[in-house]
Amino acid sequence: MSQNKVAGPEIEQLIKLLAKLPGLGPRSARRAALHLIKKKDQLLVPLAEAMGVAVDRIGVCSTCGTVDTSDPCAICADPRRDQATLVVVEDVADLWALERAAAINARYHVLGGTLSPLDGIGPDDLNITGLVERCRVEAISEVILAINATVEGQTTAHYITDQLTGLDVSITRLAHGVPVGGELDYLDEGTLAQALKARTRF
Amino acid sequence: MSQNKVAGPEIEQLIKLLAKLPGLGPRSARRAALHLIKKKDQLLVPLAEAMGVAVDRIGVCSTCGTVDTSDPCAICADPRRDQATLVVVEDVADLWALERAAAINARYHVLGGTLSPLDGIGPDDLNITGLVERCRVEAISEVILAINATVEGQTTAHYITDQLTGLDVSITRLAHGVPVGGELDYLDEGTLAQALKARTRF
Ligand SMILES: [Zn+2]
Ligand SMILES: [Zn+2]
Repeated sequence: MSQNKVAGPEIEQLIKLLAKLPGLGPRSARRAALHLIKKKDQLLVPLAEAMGVAVDRIGVCSTCGTVDTSDPCAICADPRRDQATLVVVEDVADLWALERAAAINARYHVLGGTLSPLDGIGPDDLNITGLVERCRVEAISEVILAINATVEGQTTAHYITDQLTGLDVSITRLAHGVPVGGELDYLDEGTLAQALKARTRF
Repeated sequence: MSQNKVAGPEIEQLIKLLAKLPGLGPRSARRAALHLIKKKDQLLVPLAEAMGVAVDRIGVCSTCGTVDTSDPCAICADPRRDQATLVVVEDVADLWALERAAAINARYHVLGGTLSPLDGIGPDDLNITGLVERCRVEAISEVILAINATVEGQTTAHYITDQLTGLDVSITRLAHGVPVGGELDYLDEGTLAQALKARTRF
């Protein structure tokens, strides 16, 4: 019996790439590919277009580190945002979670991760000098550390506090409504809003 | 507090479409979108390209009903395949599972589902007349019903057997290596190969 190819190289390539998405394994990638091909006009065509738009137009904001179609991003450029408060998050997903909660009308700073010596992630791998620089040159009065309540997150929070020593900014963190060990992106919007409202001095 | 948009309309559109893939919900679609944007060159660009290729080149084989870049598909057009045997499957995913198992070197016929009166799926919604027609005009000597061992699958198998009455084809089904109630696409390749080898008269 010859070893038959399951599908042509074009379909195999589509499956291989879909399998690299978080949440999809090889089997679910096959199902997703088949679903896309079957729903060509309703799903495959618009998704291919949306990805093309993303390729052409979406980039990283050089001010805060989030992703958007403009640089500075819509949030950084919005004059109605409180210009004196920065909410520091690990990841864009956390920024999105806070925006969904509509919990605060400030601007953000995306670190791009947390300090993790075991994974070889040090201060230079995170957008921390950018944060210190912003606190120096912008009129920032408060930095809210909206960082995950994990060991790495808290280590990172302490490191940032050290780096901001001597600058005239008050540093706060989210209230302990956030479950210990929990990740922001998993929380419901009400919990996030409460934790932000009851934030305490760090 | 104003209701802030989480991200620009381009990113929202990407998330919305990704959430329609089987296996991805709204939350995992956001993660997938972010992953794609971060891995722009390694993942987003090639995936957008692969989808564009799929849009342009992949269609349904008018002979067997599978998806491929040519019509007839590579399997239907392959002269080295046993031309006298048709393997009837519910779905392209099942065809792919059998091809991965490299269990048989025959051609296929994709029904596109199973009879399911409760869901309003009758004989006209499946590619059954096409199967009868192929058995009439092609020199088919055996039809292997490689249909899921579910109630709907077995109902469909009986219906097809009735439709093929009077034609000179022997109808077989997969051996009872397939777990009762199980779906082909979940089985390992060895089980599939065994079940096919030990197929019995229907
Ligand atoms: Zn920005
Ligand atoms: Zn075909």
